[in-house]
Amino acid sequence: MSRQKKIAVVLSGCGVNDGSEIHEAVMTLLAIDRRGAVCQCFAPDIAQRDVIDHAHGRPQAENRNVLIESARIARGQIRDLAAFDASDFDALVFPGGFGAAKNLCSYAVDGIDCTVLPVVAAAINGMKAAGKPIGALCISPVLLTRVLGAITVTIGNDPGTAADITRLGGRHEECGHGAVVVDRASKVVTAPCYMLNASIGQIADDADALIRAILELC
Amino acid sequence: MSRQKKIAVVLSGCGVNDGSEIHEAVMTLLAIDRRGAVCQCFAPDIAQRDVIDHAHGRPQAENRNVLIESARIARGQIRDLAAFDASDFDALVFPGGFGAAKNLCSYAVDGIDCTVLPVVAAAINGMKAAGKPIGALCISPVLLTRVLGAITVTIGNDPGTAADITRLGGRHEECGHGAVVVDRASKVVTAPCYMLNASIGQIADDADALIRAILELC
Repeated sequence: MSRQKKIAVVLSGCGVNDGSEIHEAVMTLLAIDRRGAVCQCFAPDIAQRDVIDHAHGRPQAENRNVLIESARIARGQIRDLAAFDASDFDALVFPGGFGAAKNLCSYAVDGIDCTVLPVVAAAINGMKAAGKPIGALCISPVLLTRVLGAITVTIGNDPGTAADITRLGGRHEECGHGAVVVDRASKVVTAPCYMLNASIGQIADDADALIRAILELC
Repeated sequence: MSRQKKIAVVLSGCGVNDGSEIHEAVMTLLAIDRRGAVCQCFAPDIAQRDVIDHAHGRPQAENRNVLIESARIARGQIRDLAAFDASDFDALVFPGGFGAAKNLCSYAVDGIDCTVLPVVAAAINGMKAAGKPIGALCISPVLLTRVLGAITVTIGNDPGTAADITRLGGRHEECGHGAVVVDRASKVVTAPCYMLNASIGQIADDADALIRAILELC
């Protein structure tokens, strides 16, 4: 048997509106397990940009930490992204959720002028330099494009976000559920997930298609 | 085609150590979708018993609300458990996590002398009176036994918890992953999940086995 592939998953909090989209994150972990790979979760040890009451859809006057909240999804098995070393992993995956656009980068507030958290950019550039595959779900392909520039990705079919990807130097391809867009030259795999209307079953399908494609590139 | 079955899922927060176990909750939602039923999440509108830092395994000096935190798992699509009406649903399911033993009842602190939140007891008794099935994962079978008494359930194979189930008037059966214990007379279905060592794939298997059995009883 070949060695089990090790996939790093970068979380950005715990909840679609201010952190990682929980279904996307959990389905990514499930797909990694189902396909015989092993997973290590990471998150940056920083304050969240905001805290959103998900029951009522409004901000809460609270402060939360991205690493501590992400640990809820990882059942405590999580590491500070500052300690990430590309040589330890075969692939890197970013689930979606507003946390990817609020905490990992500033796209949610700054649009295409967004800045990317240095530890996030370092992780992406480290994998790119090592010729290892990177996956991104939902809104996270914007983050990848901000760092890598000329890559081909999908965020489903939202025209505004697709136009921003072009402005960031990337190329956007429309994509439906159960499919992924694979940029073989850059080893980047992306899937739409909740950027399209979706059932939770479709999120599981998308995450599985992404992990399958990632493992083929390892 | 027969009418789609409607399953109510009761959450208890968002995170294994102070709320719903996220993987168990999400895999329950996935299994409901995969098996063609529809889901509505509920949670009680009460303060959490405590807030645990899941990265470092220690209490945090914070106050959080069970309904608001549970909404993270439900992507905002959640209702106050006080509004639950057994006549609207075909089945009721409780995922696990310490929230079931801290927020829905007081088992985590009071053991077999625990009290059950009145809205939780009302939901369980309402379904029982209507002859409709109830499912419970992980530690939640203790809660069910506290309310219903003479039922047959599993929490896997933990001797202490199994003994408590007996003291509460229930009967415990050992059970491994991918299997469930079905009490046909009481229409109660239980599965071990993270009460045993488990991969996330095994949690998906257990949740699917539970939902399949629940739907057979509807």
